[in-house]
Amino acid sequence: MSIKPIEYRHGVVRMIDQRLLPTEELWLEYSDYQTVAEAIRTMVIRGAPAIGVAAAYGVALGARDIEAEAFEDFYAALEEICDVLAATRPTAVNLFWALERMKAKARELTGTPIPGIKAALLDEAHTIAAQDEAINRSMGRHGAELIADGARVLTHCNAGALATGGYGTALGVIRAAVENGKQISVLADETRPFLQGSRLTAWELHKDGIPVTLICDNMAGALMRQGEIDCVIVGADRIAANGDVANKIGTYSVAVLAKEHGIPFYVAAPLSTIDLDIPDGDHIPIEERDTNEVTHCGPSRLAPEGVKVRNPAFDVTPSRLITAIITERGVVRGNYLAGLALLFKETA
Amino acid sequence: MSIKPIEYRHGVVRMIDQRLLPTEELWLEYSDYQTVAEAIRTMVIRGAPAIGVAAAYGVALGARDIEAEAFEDFYAALEEICDVLAATRPTAVNLFWALERMKAKARELTGTPIPGIKAALLDEAHTIAAQDEAINRSMGRHGAELIADGARVLTHCNAGALATGGYGTALGVIRAAVENGKQISVLADETRPFLQGSRLTAWELHKDGIPVTLICDNMAGALMRQGEIDCVIVGADRIAANGDVANKIGTYSVAVLAKEHGIPFYVAAPLSTIDLDIPDGDHIPIEERDTNEVTHCGPSRLAPEGVKVRNPAFDVTPSRLITAIITERGVVRGNYLAGLALLFKETA
Repeated sequence: MSIKPIEYRHGVVRMIDQRLLPTEELWLEYSDYQTVAEAIRTMVIRGAPAIGVAAAYGVALGARDIEAEAFEDFYAALEEICDVLAATRPTAVNLFWALERMKAKARELTGTPIPGIKAALLDEAHTIAAQDEAINRSMGRHGAELIADGARVLTHCNAGALATGGYGTALGVIRAAVENGKQISVLADETRPFLQGSRLTAWELHKDGIPVTLICDNMAGALMRQGEIDCVIVGADRIAANGDVANKIGTYSVAVLAKEHGIPFYVAAPLSTIDLDIPDGDHIPIEERDTNEVTHCGPSRLAPEGVKVRNPAFDVTPSRLITAIITERGVVRGNYLAGLALLFKETA
Repeated sequence: MSIKPIEYRHGVVRMIDQRLLPTEELWLEYSDYQTVAEAIRTMVIRGAPAIGVAAAYGVALGARDIEAEAFEDFYAALEEICDVLAATRPTAVNLFWALERMKAKARELTGTPIPGIKAALLDEAHTIAAQDEAINRSMGRHGAELIADGARVLTHCNAGALATGGYGTALGVIRAAVENGKQISVLADETRPFLQGSRLTAWELHKDGIPVTLICDNMAGALMRQGEIDCVIVGADRIAANGDVANKIGTYSVAVLAKEHGIPFYVAAPLSTIDLDIPDGDHIPIEERDTNEVTHCGPSRLAPEGVKVRNPAFDVTPSRLITAIITERGVVRGNYLAGLALLFKETA
């Protein structure tokens, strides 16, 4: 039973503060959309699908507090709430996907009494959260077939339960393989600068009893060369129509190294991460975050003052480096442009 | 005027504590070989050439305290001292090179009064230190020609003044290019887990006014893909006869990424780093260091307790990925087996 990083209870959204893990398990409570937006921006919650879930609950909380009586006024206020939530992080498309879905739900109910719309928006947020976990389990079933018994699987960042509504995308595939009775061991890149690998992936796999070995990001290549890695599986923040994948910074390097060593490189992501409106990875906006994430670690300063720092939070892996993309509707390989488009044509 | 990390004054060896940089500039003093050995082991001083210098001074300090009167007894005690110093770190061959050179100096003086041998050993340590800086300046002259005006140069770990008797190997080449009037900017990988890039390379380049931008190790690939890196230059801990290079963990990944992007990958190292007794990189012993280096950062715990951790301190880059090896006697390319051997045949 993997952790759920976000839940709704009695009018309050609760999130485990992912900045404090693994040393502290603190649940924070949110009762308005502004603080939910701040939680997304400051990475109390992170991971593309989890950001989508948080944004949906943010909209539900915001809608609850709208005082308008006419639908037009209500919807205008809802759009402003969505704009604030949309401005938190630019790369993960699940954020915009969730906001669009919430707005569409409201539009669908034009003419209904406002209290009913508010209740429906909260229900929609619950649905998004519940579907996300179900989607991950489905993705796990498809992906587990690609992971051999005994495989030593490298992952980067955290695409686990903590990054989603539950179960995880990349780690969901690993969990499903383990549930199928396979012996799987995981190598987790620590994933500088935010250390999602050491702090989150190592924590949630260790908690679940799945063997995990922590390494620094720069060790993956040497371990591949020594034949200690059988495949790579990562999540995604946005997948373009041609299959290019934006994911946590460092993913591209891992993909190049995997190719050099003939190791399969898999991406696991739900349809809500696929952005068919964007032709290729060059069109995906890449967030640059505060340089303090690189120059400091907790209270420790790591770099001299005044030194210039780069901190792109994501990079783009071209689809030619990707062995397969695992979704809840099946596995896509080869011609991603056709294969990804086809996923959306199949009835849900 | 770049820093020298180790110096001898009035019977005492002083080293800047590289574990505390850049936040604290503390000089520690050593007056016996045991504590010098401990300083090498705990990385108060690090970098292959600097380890060689420290070991030479360690032998000189140890020799000073030997009470034997006969040469045989003196030499037996000297060998024991060398054995203790040799057991500190396995990968950097400069350590063993310096110890052999000190023992050879003693043997050369068989029959001389012991006090004279002790003085000669201290002189030899001074010579090793002074030659190391001169060698780096010579390496810089050869290497600077490979670096174009305006180049954006990526380096990994610290192969700078702090890693040597002064001036630096990889950073010596950069310093020489700058002294030749070229506009050079440096991208420094932070180099987990010990952070020699953020703590040491950024510090010494920033101090010298050479433009430096700090990045996490996992960002180098994405920046190469975006065309923001023109060449790579790194140091080495040991170079095998065929040109395979052991260097700080992560070097291999950088070399693979450089090849993928058609970016030249240079190694700068003195002849004392070249080990013709070892046919290839597979024969180079790779140190695994304490897992605390990975799980902790200063007082902060980064990973959950009980998680398995790997911490290889070095990796091996096969010579096929290396564009050229820059030494104090010139630049070797292509057939490293012949080229490296030839360097040693030229008269000093």
